[in-house]
Amino acid sequence: MVTIKDIAKRLGIAPSTVSKGLNDANDISPELKQLVLDTAIEMGYVTKRMKKETRKRLCVFIENMRYEQSRHFGFDIILGFRQAAVRDNWDITIVPITPDLQLEDPYDRYMVKNNYHGGFLVGFALKDPWMEQLKTTTIPTVLFDNYITKNSNVAYVGTDSFEGIDLAIDHLTALGHTQIALLNGSLNSMVTAHRYDAYIASMQSHQLQVNENLVAYGHYVEDSAKYHMPSLIKNGATAILCGNDLLAVGIIRECEKLHIKIPTDLSIIGYDNLPIAAEISPALTTINQDRINLGRNAYAALFWLIAKVPISRSLLRPQLIVRDTTAKPKSSYHRVRYSSQSSQRLQSNL
Amino acid sequence: MVTIKDIAKRLGIAPSTVSKGLNDANDISPELKQLVLDTAIEMGYVTKRMKKETRKRLCVFIENMRYEQSRHFGFDIILGFRQAAVRDNWDITIVPITPDLQLEDPYDRYMVKNNYHGGFLVGFALKDPWMEQLKTTTIPTVLFDNYITKNSNVAYVGTDSFEGIDLAIDHLTALGHTQIALLNGSLNSMVTAHRYDAYIASMQSHQLQVNENLVAYGHYVEDSAKYHMPSLIKNGATAILCGNDLLAVGIIRECEKLHIKIPTDLSIIGYDNLPIAAEISPALTTINQDRINLGRNAYAALFWLIAKVPISRSLLRPQLIVRDTTAKPKSSYHRVRYSSQSSQRLQSNL
Repeated sequence: MVTIKDIAKRLGIAPSTVSKGLNDANDISPELKQLVLDTAIEMGYVTKRMKKETRKRLCVFIENMRYEQSRHFGFDIILGFRQAAVRDNWDITIVPITPDLQLEDPYDRYMVKNNYHGGFLVGFALKDPWMEQLKTTTIPTVLFDNYITKNSNVAYVGTDSFEGIDLAIDHLTALGHTQIALLNGSLNSMVTAHRYDAYIASMQSHQLQVNENLVAYGHYVEDSAKYHMPSLIKNGATAILCGNDLLAVGIIRECEKLHIKIPTDLSIIGYDNLPIAAEISPALTTINQDRINLGRNAYAALFWLIAKVPISRSLLRPQLIVRDTTAKPKSSYHRVRYSSQSSQRLQSNL
Repeated sequence: MVTIKDIAKRLGIAPSTVSKGLNDANDISPELKQLVLDTAIEMGYVTKRMKKETRKRLCVFIENMRYEQSRHFGFDIILGFRQAAVRDNWDITIVPITPDLQLEDPYDRYMVKNNYHGGFLVGFALKDPWMEQLKTTTIPTVLFDNYITKNSNVAYVGTDSFEGIDLAIDHLTALGHTQIALLNGSLNSMVTAHRYDAYIASMQSHQLQVNENLVAYGHYVEDSAKYHMPSLIKNGATAILCGNDLLAVGIIRECEKLHIKIPTDLSIIGYDNLPIAAEISPALTTINQDRINLGRNAYAALFWLIAKVPISRSLLRPQLIVRDTTAKPKSSYHRVRYSSQSSQRLQSNL
């Protein structure tokens, strides 16, 4: 159980100052108040005021994504959203959702019934029942990584996938790679489509031939990697650009089993910069998504929509984080695609 | 003269904690340290470390655009920006700029020399000297209707041109138009390129043939319209979609002279929704850009950049405003392209 003393210790201020921050006292600056609230939320402290608030309510729906622990992709997004929303005294409810639950109630009815003033939808798939309904919703709604045309009640927030993929291909081509594979995520997702389009555009702008045999679609989970790696490598990939870090981790584990050396034999780039990217060995070169600020940005967009400002989209820049999974490709002469042993193991995976 | 005690009082913490913050002590959280420094700077407290800090200053540069009166496009953008910035006590300077002035000083040197913490650049052309320098600037900078790749110090704000053009073409096709012309603005502009791409994409998505003879580039001023109208109409246009309201006003005036009836003989759609769009007769159907909120959005983006949040782009939705310049096209049988008198007048304009 987090106490006021814990928050005070963390911030290096007196417990009485923390109390002032939590109780909206007048003799403490708004900025320090916000910092106290941010920290309290991050540490899991629940204030009396937060318990009392029932009138102003926002709902975060999350699907197809883990968010319970800090190592999960959704965790910081929701944390950032809650940190930003608390200053306006919103009560935030987190609802894990499924297509079946969406079929029980239309989106607008669900929101009105539960007295939610706005929604933040994270991880929705293109075919989700509510996605169609969002084209005409009257409820202020922010989508993470999804876009709805021509409805000024709905905004899209995310990280610019085009620049992310382009940064990765800049890096790989600077190292000398030309046979760059894309191991993409699930087809039923807008960012998957964006990253494919970005890959094609970036390969072309780098004067590289696109080879469709070097493109595969899996799912955004580690276990998916092994089904796709063999054909990418057999088709000559010297580098694999992955749709997220989990896929990249799957590739690293598979390479371990098959005695393929990273980055000597194969370069790998992830996407997202989850904590595991820094922890795994070799540490993963990846594209950072600033998830705390994505959450804050989502709240800012929702705040604007509620104020009738027709925000359409608000995107953050990705950042390339170079670690240990990328290097020059072997020269063609020295390249050993597979030892016969690796080859046999691969066959059994196909 | 501001003292440590004043800062402590303002923040509601002990003077000793303020000292720790100012002296970079280790037993105070980085967030609180930042807050102490921010507050000290804001209150005008001066230490050796802060000697260079004076007043918090932002600069708005404006070019190729009128902004002095409320009927001008730039007026509300700057007003919205100033309204939003004033709450954070920024000192705002408005600087009309030219390519020559840009050649006198590189952008970063100009900003540092004048002690500006950030810039908002409105109306810049693609070939402006500073545009190239923005690729590597370290100064937080927001561009209206311009985009710089891969520099996390620079953000782009504007209205989604793709949706704007698509709304206009939705409206015209619903009325029965198929011969839709685009009278675009200056070539040396990002939005001009976006609106052309949007026109092509939207025509195709409406299953309409693109006829390049129905596309013309002028300048974003009224006088430009008359040079391009004749060929658009001779090539069969039943509707002209204009790059801004001023071009549309030019078309209306030209039609008056030539006794072409609007909207019976020709439909016209503007872009921007300037005050003149509602005042002119017939009142102009147009695409609204919410300029006050564009200005506010620009400040919000600049605020984030200054706080090191890598905002990439933040766009508002456009809105179709239907007035009196759009109607069903004449059936082919009844359509009279030009009276011989009109035709003669047109010749003299070519």
